[in-house]
Amino acid sequence: MSRDITPDVDLALFGALGDLALRKLYPALYHLDREGLLGDTTRILGLARQEHDVDSFRTSVKEALNKRLKPHELEKACLERFLARIDYQQLDFATVDGYDAIRDWHDATARPMVVYLAVPASIYGDICANLQASGSLDDEARVVVEKPIGYDLESSIQINDAIGDVFPESRIYRMDHYLGKETVQNLIALRFANPLFGNQWNQNQISHVEITVAEKVGIEGRWGYFDEAGQLRDMVQNHLLQLLCLIAMDPPSNLDADAIRDEKVKVLKALKPLVGEELSRNVVRGQYIGGSVDGDSVPGYLDEEGANTSSHTETFVAMKLEVANWRWAGVPFYLRTGKRMPEKMSQIVIHFRQQPHYIFDPDQRGLAANKLVIRLQPEEGIALQVLTKDSGLDKGMRLRPGPLHLDFNHAFPKTRIPDAYERLLLEVMKGQQYLFVRRDEVEYAWKWVDQLIAGWEARDMPPRRYPAGSWGPVASIAMITQDGRSWYEDY
Amino acid sequence: MSRDITPDVDLALFGALGDLALRKLYPALYHLDREGLLGDTTRILGLARQEHDVDSFRTSVKEALNKRLKPHELEKACLERFLARIDYQQLDFATVDGYDAIRDWHDATARPMVVYLAVPASIYGDICANLQASGSLDDEARVVVEKPIGYDLESSIQINDAIGDVFPESRIYRMDHYLGKETVQNLIALRFANPLFGNQWNQNQISHVEITVAEKVGIEGRWGYFDEAGQLRDMVQNHLLQLLCLIAMDPPSNLDADAIRDEKVKVLKALKPLVGEELSRNVVRGQYIGGSVDGDSVPGYLDEEGANTSSHTETFVAMKLEVANWRWAGVPFYLRTGKRMPEKMSQIVIHFRQQPHYIFDPDQRGLAANKLVIRLQPEEGIALQVLTKDSGLDKGMRLRPGPLHLDFNHAFPKTRIPDAYERLLLEVMKGQQYLFVRRDEVEYAWKWVDQLIAGWEARDMPPRRYPAGSWGPVASIAMITQDGRSWYEDY
Repeated sequence: MSRDITPDVDLALFGALGDLALRKLYPALYHLDREGLLGDTTRILGLARQEHDVDSFRTSVKEALNKRLKPHELEKACLERFLARIDYQQLDFATVDGYDAIRDWHDATARPMVVYLAVPASIYGDICANLQASGSLDDEARVVVEKPIGYDLESSIQINDAIGDVFPESRIYRMDHYLGKETVQNLIALRFANPLFGNQWNQNQISHVEITVAEKVGIEGRWGYFDEAGQLRDMVQNHLLQLLCLIAMDPPSNLDADAIRDEKVKVLKALKPLVGEELSRNVVRGQYIGGSVDGDSVPGYLDEEGANTSSHTETFVAMKLEVANWRWAGVPFYLRTGKRMPEKMSQIVIHFRQQPHYIFDPDQRGLAANKLVIRLQPEEGIALQVLTKDSGLDKGMRLRPGPLHLDFNHAFPKTRIPDAYERLLLEVMKGQQYLFVRRDEVEYAWKWVDQLIAGWEARDMPPRRYPAGSWGPVASIAMITQDGRSWYEDY
Repeated sequence: MSRDITPDVDLALFGALGDLALRKLYPALYHLDREGLLGDTTRILGLARQEHDVDSFRTSVKEALNKRLKPHELEKACLERFLARIDYQQLDFATVDGYDAIRDWHDATARPMVVYLAVPASIYGDICANLQASGSLDDEARVVVEKPIGYDLESSIQINDAIGDVFPESRIYRMDHYLGKETVQNLIALRFANPLFGNQWNQNQISHVEITVAEKVGIEGRWGYFDEAGQLRDMVQNHLLQLLCLIAMDPPSNLDADAIRDEKVKVLKALKPLVGEELSRNVVRGQYIGGSVDGDSVPGYLDEEGANTSSHTETFVAMKLEVANWRWAGVPFYLRTGKRMPEKMSQIVIHFRQQPHYIFDPDQRGLAANKLVIRLQPEEGIALQVLTKDSGLDKGMRLRPGPLHLDFNHAFPKTRIPDAYERLLLEVMKGQQYLFVRRDEVEYAWKWVDQLIAGWEARDMPPRRYPAGSWGPVASIAMITQDGRSWYEDY
């Protein structure tokens, strides 16, 4: 599964002038090309409704790269080679007319087709049907789709059905770009290559787990879209539950995509529903009001442009979950994610239990023993906190919390950490699905989220307010404090 | 047990112009003074047979400090304060005449006496008796003695008896300067403050342990002395077995000296005797022949000045031990120590077992999973080896052995690591014995060593030759290789 030559593909990119393509996909593809990881004859066909000829489209791509890449990354020869791979076809996605051009462009004898749907999920079905009707697909054609897959279980089933009518599950690649992060993949290596961690990865040795995904940004001009969803659907249903699955899953018997995803699904099935009393006690909804981020005053959620001032949509959610199985019984998983937090910060903290018997200075008893901090943002890195003897002569046998940083950048200052999209695009081209989300994962996650939202609605739980630039409602602090713990914010 | 003011003492130093005093004790005492860790009125009385007045003796001490300390450490005011603490008394240690001067110098009402015997063990008894006969000792008087405590169990009993006639065990401080090293004390913190390690510290999780104490030097002009002893008595009986005890001991119920030493003694008692077949299979004796160290050619042991050319004394010993108890059954402890090795290097390596189930690339299966490397020399430090995902995009899920260095110097570049003698002298002044060797530890260690030597003699096992500048006889490599392992030499 490594060091292979990347197979050649024909990549048909729907939404070729959209935000995702310009910000993420072209830079990722360019980096792959620059590192020799695109097949020699791999080609890209941009598809969008705007009128462009090939040259003017390539110019748009070039501008996007100029904006996103560092100057030293833009090598002339490589840029030319990359742009030469690109064609453009104007297309109305909704009607089959024009799809012929895709069929004619694709050289099925030479390379399989990869269809990338960088467009809203509402038109996934039309595109898939039109691709099939026009005879554009070969037997190896893959489709890449982005979250959100629907709005709830029911709509996700509709979308997945529409895709599934055309593509078998083994050729559907559902993106969750968190899974492409080096550090997230490192969870697999940390857990299953290191018995030091792997042997202790259970309720006997771990007291609790934290997952924080804090955004500094607010709504970024998409109030209407976001308000339909809210933070639970937008972030927890996919990213946070995916992280939880990777942390909590039992060891797979191999690294095959289905071996891993079978284990992830088991976690989702074991997630204890949050209902009744627990819903009030173990979930905190929040919505930001005006405040200050980085010293700039920013408006509240209800004061944003386009806001419906009576919205009860949450921009923050904190929750205490339990994975009800043998491995994790009694170990709380504290999750939180919100907008307009003081910093952009995503991290997982594994808290190991305290020593069974403490023999050091009584006034140091409170020192947390061991924790493993896996940081995804702003920089990726892993740190292990270990207590050592404080080395001062005047200290006697005093302890010192000493983090052992396993920092990719520190350890290998010349290694660029690839963007998640690079990794994921590469895996699609190689036909490897283990970093992509299987249909049943999406559906079990929605099922759990739907149940939670139904509870909110039944109990009328409006969000609590928190000032922009804070760590969310104080109730989120209280939720963890009442267990004698706190959100870990150092690194 | 920490941050206390150091009590004042009167330190009577026998062997005040000897090598140990000049090289180690004055620099250590000066550093303590400089860091404000000597009691304000603490005084030092140098005792030796040479004729000196106070001024010329202080000049000798000053010269020793000049030679040993770094220029920036020599502060004029501090040096003057330190030298002003020092008196001198010429003395023939063997006769009671003259000990009156010690009694008269000591102010028993103000400070307890600390007697430091930096002299050969053969005269410990005389000195103790003369101190008592002259009425120099108060009820709190402590005595500090250096290794070697005898040559075998019988002679060690004689020496300990002679000291014990005058001092109770609770006021006898047997030095093993390895116990004063920061990193060795850190073993206690690592094991008992960190459940991540402490919970796995047994035969279920650890496959084997290595202890290496490699010296680059040869005999250093003391051929006759060394030849009487050999490497087993000179290094294993004390330093290596002490390290083994700290690694292998069960958790003490507190940090009291006797709680710790009770556990250490249990390890010595559980050491499986090496007899019969095992003696040939699990022990390698070596003696260096001429070779090259750091590019300089050096003579063999039998060609050193003063050598008896038919000596069979070992300058190297490697052995595979077993601690026959519940915690360690089946876990080999590989020990080796020798002179004229390629480098000065002391380290302990804890090898954790492999993953119970391996799911990564088959060609990486051989990668050792986790190990903890505790390094004592040349620099002190601790490193944990963890396997992570190799971060290159072209690597797929490839593993990379990544050491996590917990390096005092790196982490705290301004922290000077104190010499072992500083720590140990401080503990003596504080009256804390947990870093000193109790009589029964000495005796159980001798008992085990005596049994081994008797076996050598009975089986006529002459040492194998190894070239100076090598890692010992090839048989030492073979001993560990036949178990599918190897001595760990990276850091």
